Amino acid sequence: MDIFKFKERVDDFLNSYFNDIIKGKQGIELELLINLKDFTMRGGKRLRPLFMILGYWLNSDEINHEVIKASSSLELIQSYLLIHDDIIDESDLRRGGPTYHKMFNYSSKISHDLAIVAGDVANSLAYELLLSSKFPEKNLNKSVYYLTEILKFTGIGQAIDVILPLKSNKNASDVDLVHEYKTAHYTINGPLKMGAALSDFTDVDRIDEYGIPLGKAFQIQDDILGLFGDEKVLGKPVTSDLEEGKITHLIVFALEMASEEDRRTLMRIHGKKGITKEELDLVRDVIKRSGAYDRTIKLMNSYLEKSLEAIPKIAKDQERAKALEEIAHYMVKRNF
Amino acid sequence: MDIFKFKERVDDFLNSYFNDIIKGKQGIELELLINLKDFTMRGGKRLRPLFMILGYWLNSDEINHEVIKASSSLELIQSYLLIHDDIIDESDLRRGGPTYHKMFNYSSKISHDLAIVAGDVANSLAYELLLSSKFPEKNLNKSVYYLTEILKFTGIGQAIDVILPLKSNKNASDVDLVHEYKTAHYTINGPLKMGAALSDFTDVDRIDEYGIPLGKAFQIQDDILGLFGDEKVLGKPVTSDLEEGKITHLIVFALEMASEEDRRTLMRIHGKKGITKEELDLVRDVIKRSGAYDRTIKLMNSYLEKSLEAIPKIAKDQERAKALEEIAHYMVKRNF
Repeated sequence: MDIFKFKERVDDFLNSYFNDIIKGKQGIELELLINLKDFTMRGGKRLRPLFMILGYWLNSDEINHEVIKASSSLELIQSYLLIHDDIIDESDLRRGGPTYHKMFNYSSKISHDLAIVAGDVANSLAYELLLSSKFPEKNLNKSVYYLTEILKFTGIGQAIDVILPLKSNKNASDVDLVHEYKTAHYTINGPLKMGAALSDFTDVDRIDEYGIPLGKAFQIQDDILGLFGDEKVLGKPVTSDLEEGKITHLIVFALEMASEEDRRTLMRIHGKKGITKEELDLVRDVIKRSGAYDRTIKLMNSYLEKSLEAIPKIAKDQERAKALEEIAHYMVKRNF
Repeated sequence: MDIFKFKERVDDFLNSYFNDIIKGKQGIELELLINLKDFTMRGGKRLRPLFMILGYWLNSDEINHEVIKASSSLELIQSYLLIHDDIIDESDLRRGGPTYHKMFNYSSKISHDLAIVAGDVANSLAYELLLSSKFPEKNLNKSVYYLTEILKFTGIGQAIDVILPLKSNKNASDVDLVHEYKTAHYTINGPLKMGAALSDFTDVDRIDEYGIPLGKAFQIQDDILGLFGDEKVLGKPVTSDLEEGKITHLIVFALEMASEEDRRTLMRIHGKKGITKEELDLVRDVIKRSGAYDRTIKLMNSYLEKSLEAIPKIAKDQERAKALEEIAHYMVKRNF
């Protein structure tokens, strides 16, 4: 089972969904929804719907229209969170275009206000879409409940992330907590569980053992790509994580393990605006030389290992075991 | 049936609910939740839970703990919306204390960011709480679905409200639209329907005919109190709606009906900061003299009338009809 083949069906569904909800609307409601459509359709890998489809498939063979519909709700959730994130991070660019609050021709204040509201609207549209998909009421109910759990975790993770820069001694467990709350539940584990709940999978929480470590491994890989990846493949400047002052295992380990001089170099460049190619190379060198790079790779692999070990507990046959294994490897080897 | 007698049970439930979710938490999560508890417990009239209880009672006699629990979720929704509203309106005071984003000792930027996130967390807590109440899954899913509808309407209403000051010719139908979207669905009609759905009320949408006009009448009464009410009873300066430049029927009608001189006076004072007692009296005079006051009262009464006429369609017995009638009259006669 190759879950990526469903990406097109999710995209097609979302496209016709937006056309439906836009129909007959006018004024600011129309403007808000058209921008939401553009913002949502511009992205992306549709990872969360695909993991939800995978979760459903764990206990069911047919991926019908209702599964596509229910899982597409996670792209509305993704837009909701990204819209609010981009306000918080004061970002101008997202998915190769303007962030949501930069899509309006109003004053900055009004555009920000509309973006807060549009994020909130996207949240209710997501719940509405999920609830309107046709599944046994009990299963649907459970799936929506998992969605609330994901969003609670994501919110707390976001709050931790917001105040992390203020903390003087950041350590690996802070980073790990943000990864667990902001990524592991949200991107992989939660969607898997939402899908599994829809197909009446028994004891859905078993999936945690696979989904949480895999989510953490995925986020570590994401952080590595954010600093060592290929700009053309990434679609964003490879200096942006560094300029943003993003706190990752690479940074925390390097601050812990590097020589005093290297540490000072790193602290000088980390969070600085307008980082040059030379400074980027300097940081890369410090991270490699200190052993932080290898330690991060090792940590990532240990999480991957953990998730692989959990597969027999959740796969009901060889076909499913193989699919879970393949996707796990893919998530930490990808270079997108 | 006096729904106001349930206020204490809602308050008690919320208090122990917050104590439960705070238990064992630490760091920023704890801080965020403690502030959410304080902010939520500081308000208010609990109108939305009470209307949800009333909606439930339309088809069921017993108001048990689960009904209280489910309806209390609307106070978390209320906190979610107020937190975001207060960011948008740049308000410092709410419910006799600081607005949520003023409750932190961080920088203004970080406090605003935390408030966006805390609003989002309150939203998921509300869904989670509602979904964890014990009702037949079909009813529960329907109730949650109505919640998504309410929040969609409220969001669109909020967006209309955000850009309304930019519109040059504001008329009564703009005001009416905001009232329908932001108040009628959210405060009265939606909660009634959410409660009715839980008790298996047939054809829940019938309630619209009662709830929407009553919600509009209530909002008009609220606008009247905001300009002609007693400051001590209101708990906020009676100039604040005027200083905020709030666009109400009173204002729109007066701009339409007043003499050219009075119109200019009104436009000069409406939206001005630091309005004196004399200026307030001037505005009140203009509104009365122009006939806008009487026209607004008439409009309010026509909405009240409409809602009263719908009662036979939704009340299954005399007791219920009487309760619906009493609460309708109360909502437009209150002076709080």
